[in-house]
Amino acid sequence: MNIKLLLRLLGAILLVEAAAMLPALLIAIGYGEGDALAFVWPMLLLILIGVPLRLFIKAEQTNLRAREGFLVVSLAWVLLSVFGALPFVFSGVIPNFVDALFESVSGFTTTGASIMTQIEGQPHGVMFWRSFTHWIGGMGVLVLTLALLPQMSGRTSHLVRAESPGPTLSKIVPRMGDTAKILYTIYGVLTVAEFLLLMLAGMNAYDAAIHAMGTAGTGGFSNYAASVGHFDSALIDAIVTLFMVLFGVNFVLYYKLFLRDLKEIKANEELKWYLSIYVGVTAFITLIILPQKGNFFTALRYSSFQVASIVSTTGYATDNFDLWPLAARMLILVIMFFGSCAGSTAGGMKICRIGMLSKQAVREVRHTIQPRKTMVVRFEGKAVDEGVLRQVATFAFIYVALIVLGGFLLSLEGRYDMMTNFSAALTCVSNVGPGFGEVGPAGGFSGYGPFAKLLSSFLMLAGRLEIFPMLALFHPAMWRK
Amino acid sequence: MNIKLLLRLLGAILLVEAAAMLPALLIAIGYGEGDALAFVWPMLLLILIGVPLRLFIKAEQTNLRAREGFLVVSLAWVLLSVFGALPFVFSGVIPNFVDALFESVSGFTTTGASIMTQIEGQPHGVMFWRSFTHWIGGMGVLVLTLALLPQMSGRTSHLVRAESPGPTLSKIVPRMGDTAKILYTIYGVLTVAEFLLLMLAGMNAYDAAIHAMGTAGTGGFSNYAASVGHFDSALIDAIVTLFMVLFGVNFVLYYKLFLRDLKEIKANEELKWYLSIYVGVTAFITLIILPQKGNFFTALRYSSFQVASIVSTTGYATDNFDLWPLAARMLILVIMFFGSCAGSTAGGMKICRIGMLSKQAVREVRHTIQPRKTMVVRFEGKAVDEGVLRQVATFAFIYVALIVLGGFLLSLEGRYDMMTNFSAALTCVSNVGPGFGEVGPAGGFSGYGPFAKLLSSFLMLAGRLEIFPMLALFHPAMWRK
Repeated sequence: MNIKLLLRLLGAILLVEAAAMLPALLIAIGYGEGDALAFVWPMLLLILIGVPLRLFIKAEQTNLRAREGFLVVSLAWVLLSVFGALPFVFSGVIPNFVDALFESVSGFTTTGASIMTQIEGQPHGVMFWRSFTHWIGGMGVLVLTLALLPQMSGRTSHLVRAESPGPTLSKIVPRMGDTAKILYTIYGVLTVAEFLLLMLAGMNAYDAAIHAMGTAGTGGFSNYAASVGHFDSALIDAIVTLFMVLFGVNFVLYYKLFLRDLKEIKANEELKWYLSIYVGVTAFITLIILPQKGNFFTALRYSSFQVASIVSTTGYATDNFDLWPLAARMLILVIMFFGSCAGSTAGGMKICRIGMLSKQAVREVRHTIQPRKTMVVRFEGKAVDEGVLRQVATFAFIYVALIVLGGFLLSLEGRYDMMTNFSAALTCVSNVGPGFGEVGPAGGFSGYGPFAKLLSSFLMLAGRLEIFPMLALFHPAMWRK
Repeated sequence: MNIKLLLRLLGAILLVEAAAMLPALLIAIGYGEGDALAFVWPMLLLILIGVPLRLFIKAEQTNLRAREGFLVVSLAWVLLSVFGALPFVFSGVIPNFVDALFESVSGFTTTGASIMTQIEGQPHGVMFWRSFTHWIGGMGVLVLTLALLPQMSGRTSHLVRAESPGPTLSKIVPRMGDTAKILYTIYGVLTVAEFLLLMLAGMNAYDAAIHAMGTAGTGGFSNYAASVGHFDSALIDAIVTLFMVLFGVNFVLYYKLFLRDLKEIKANEELKWYLSIYVGVTAFITLIILPQKGNFFTALRYSSFQVASIVSTTGYATDNFDLWPLAARMLILVIMFFGSCAGSTAGGMKICRIGMLSKQAVREVRHTIQPRKTMVVRFEGKAVDEGVLRQVATFAFIYVALIVLGGFLLSLEGRYDMMTNFSAALTCVSNVGPGFGEVGPAGGFSGYGPFAKLLSSFLMLAGRLEIFPMLALFHPAMWRK
């Protein structure tokens, strides 16, 4: 184990987090609501730990093996969350550390589930930080670190692979550091575009920034208890809906768009599945909630928003889907598993995995009919390697097993009903935010005890890092010499 | 497609079903409750269709290809259920055909879910038939046909493979017909043993037969609304508990026991997993329900029975687990997926699949740490073929997808809550019987509409035949020339 390199990398990440607190600090100073010191102390702490790690530790070897890569990523996310919780505690907004940690993990993992019961009237700096964690976590903090520190770009594809969603890593350009820069540029441009549109639609700059960051990271924190529903504007709903869908698309496709490679975008199979699921589910739910909403436009407005919010694993709400008719609620639960495209900022199992598994399932059915016929599973126009298929199927098993086991463990506190507990585990692992029952769009995780909050935090981190890096921490081979 | 051979085989199966109605007919005549004709007409119908198929159709080729084998099995189970429903309709016990079909499918698939609201006071012949379908369906009707008609034993391993639970088929002896005879002998001996013990414990012969057949097939139909709880006897509870656990064991192991090959039994990995899960879950639930039950013995009595009933997918009840504390209910739901050993009469995913998947999951986690290390998954002391692993993982995906999709489709009728609908789909696919909420141990499927009842019937058949044969019916390749 190359401990020195590991510590140097973690040092860099802590310094990046210190820098990431700067905008929130400036806003806190600007509004003068007494929460500036809540950022100064954590930043000093991060610098006091991060600088010595960078200055005094020299790593002879700069090769990072897979094991170390996954360890760095797991530890980085845990540390980020722990230090990211401090402003909540120091400002007194969330005095309890476990609660603050939950909120911080929920932010960085872009889940958007909350333990806060009082949203309105909190200091602007802290609420900005809460949403800024979405923006950092969406594209990934290691990707950001790589974009900022190109000299780390040597053999760091393990890092990015561990942090980037999807079964395979698609590099945009050969150098990882350059890929990271391109990704963050696209991410920034899209975020600014939404920010400007939201302002044009009537939001003030602060609200627009909060909601643009929440959408971009597919997080879902709002500075209003009623979420995006607070604004009660069809135009704002439409803008947020559009961008929730956009941030669920593989960012590589935006780079292709920039290169005017429209052919490859049109041929993208995952995108077709993604949009078909989105349109299909929205159409179905529009019909189901039509009697409740009275007219087609209103039904479409609320269904398109809520479905975009769930499929992109954002979690914003303009309507309480837990009050919808049974079939609509069942379908919402089903699509909570799916998520969006690989290489997007969204959570969930990812559409390409669902696609590959479906094709593999059809092949297996056909195999019972024609056992001697050799068949390959094709995705994105290429034959999928059998090892990848096995890995994807195993991923799906662990994913569901983690939700089932997580739901059971959450229930050990004896709180709430079965659907609340299972949907809480599902919404955490899929990084969606709301679930059903007590953790539904109108509820939250505040009623759970410390054990359930820590467990939920673990589930959110496991889901964001696509499970393996977090589970690897528990495998003895990780800690063997 | 060898249509002639297919028709000849279906003819044989229909004749076997006619013969299978004989015991119920005799009981109906004996009790003289007016339900004898309800068996005479279906038997005549079966003979009128079956005999010409056997007599007038000559198949030149006796080779059965995989496709035809799966088709025969699927069609056989559908036909069996349709004709098996007739005694319910003709006797007037269940006048509605869709309801009767549900009850018949639930019987043959050994699910044990019921749409009957009045159990006590029904004619003895019909209630015997209802439970006898469990006994036939448990070991499999094609296995029975093979045992009775050894000349069919040529190339029929496809048939038995399609009907026998588990990822791989273990032949006991080289000839399939002999294997079938051995299996049915073990099955019969165990059933008679339970029957005698239940009589010794105080049951009358009729009740003992009903409950021995219900346990043997891991079905769960009782002739009392309170199920086994009706007898309120710790001794009867203990006997049924023991046999529910026994019928969840791979029957090959009983043959090994007969051969005194104790070494192989001790080495059986699936058995170890199975018993560990049973003992572990029972211990946990005993502790959880201890405060409710007051003393350790009572808690153990009810938890050991209910856990055996769920793990073996029988569905008998002595206590309503839907009234247990939250964590106990959550765990019951989790083990509803599992089922028992391959090669037993139980449903569910089967313990060996859960075991292989768990090991494969651990390997995949380790693979992230040591990507270059070659690792094999070992089960039952042998390296598992990568193709089998992929198949098992795909099976698990389809299994869960079918439950999730089934639950969603059930909800289209707009009845009940989410947990009722998902647990109904789960209990059907796993062939357990009771679920949660409206379909819990104190409820049933009677409140669903015809669409949900037909869909549930499909899910039960799909679960009993381990999904592929039923899904294969929907693949175009099945119907291509």
